[in-house]
Amino acid sequence: MESVVQAAEITDKRLLRGSRTRRLVLDRAIDIASLDSLEGLSFGRLATDTGLSKAGIQTLFRSKETLQLATIDHFREWFLETVVRPAAAKPRGAQRLRALVDHWIAYVSDPLLEGGCFQVANVAEFDSRPGPVRDALAENQRMWTARLARELTYARDQGEIAELDPELAAFQIDAVLKLANSALRLGDTDAVSKARRTVEALLVSP
Amino acid sequence: MESVVQAAEITDKRLLRGSRTRRLVLDRAIDIASLDSLEGLSFGRLATDTGLSKAGIQTLFRSKETLQLATIDHFREWFLETVVRPAAAKPRGAQRLRALVDHWIAYVSDPLLEGGCFQVANVAEFDSRPGPVRDALAENQRMWTARLARELTYARDQGEIAELDPELAAFQIDAVLKLANSALRLGDTDAVSKARRTVEALLVSP
Repeated sequence: MESVVQAAEITDKRLLRGSRTRRLVLDRAIDIASLDSLEGLSFGRLATDTGLSKAGIQTLFRSKETLQLATIDHFREWFLETVVRPAAAKPRGAQRLRALVDHWIAYVSDPLLEGGCFQVANVAEFDSRPGPVRDALAENQRMWTARLARELTYARDQGEIAELDPELAAFQIDAVLKLANSALRLGDTDAVSKARRTVEALLVSP
Repeated sequence: MESVVQAAEITDKRLLRGSRTRRLVLDRAIDIASLDSLEGLSFGRLATDTGLSKAGIQTLFRSKETLQLATIDHFREWFLETVVRPAAAKPRGAQRLRALVDHWIAYVSDPLLEGGCFQVANVAEFDSRPGPVRDALAENQRMWTARLARELTYARDQGEIAELDPELAAFQIDAVLKLANSALRLGDTDAVSKARRTVEALLVSP
């Protein structure tokens, strides 16, 4: 019985160590992918950047595609934590939408990932390459615009904002945010204010 | 005298052949760069794709950066020919702006370059890398939005469209077009209609 408990403890420790290593690697991976896209990820580069062994990282992720998909998953969690959950503290509708936009702008302005928007960097690279990586990026895209549309629908239905098509407005908000990300990287500092003005024009009172 | 004329003819032929080769290589280069970005260009790949010798292409362009900059120049000419000049047949203002948008949408929908929008593919790759390539891409960006803003200013000043901020509207149009390009590549066919509706909403009569 005791040996079973001991064995379980050892397994737990190993799992914990594995999951910490995984997290360390994936934290670095989302940074690299925001800068040089998921194509720029390699076991060698991750080993150099994290100080872990290349063989160890390879054992954890096996193939480059598995690593790319794990990086997208990790980014999704990171994005929920950084942009979505803080905004959830605000009441549904226009206030939560503004909070989502504010947190998103902070994410690409500081920037919290080295290369700015993860999606912009990776969709541009993978949009013409059918496969699971492109599908996962497209799914991120859908989740994000659906989230924006949901708050817009609520705000409109509650009479907080004037009549609009939530799907169209979500598309427009996503568009100006993504262009502001690129413009920021190119040194155009005025783009963020243009994005904000676009959002505010959509949120006018009825 | 005769030999001078002959020598001049030989030089002319050589220049012509050089310029034809250059054009052949650069036509292929803008396709590759729209798909895999300017980072995906190599003398070897261009040689394979065009059937020309790698050494010959290398002699023409010398370094990868020279090739990348020549490709951006070639794209600029190609874009003027494909999107800008056909629209110039329309009267200035709202009509020319609509024609610019129509030709731009045709450029990414057909798509005329394999990977769709050249700028989207390359800005995402180079926006965090200071240097002449990024500067040339940023210049393309400025030229395009200035062109949109010019037609919007004219349309507004002539009373064709309602009061608006031309710089802001140009940013919004550019944003929805670029997002429509990515959405098209990801299989979202509704994005083009959303982009068109955004443009039409900006062009309402006063």
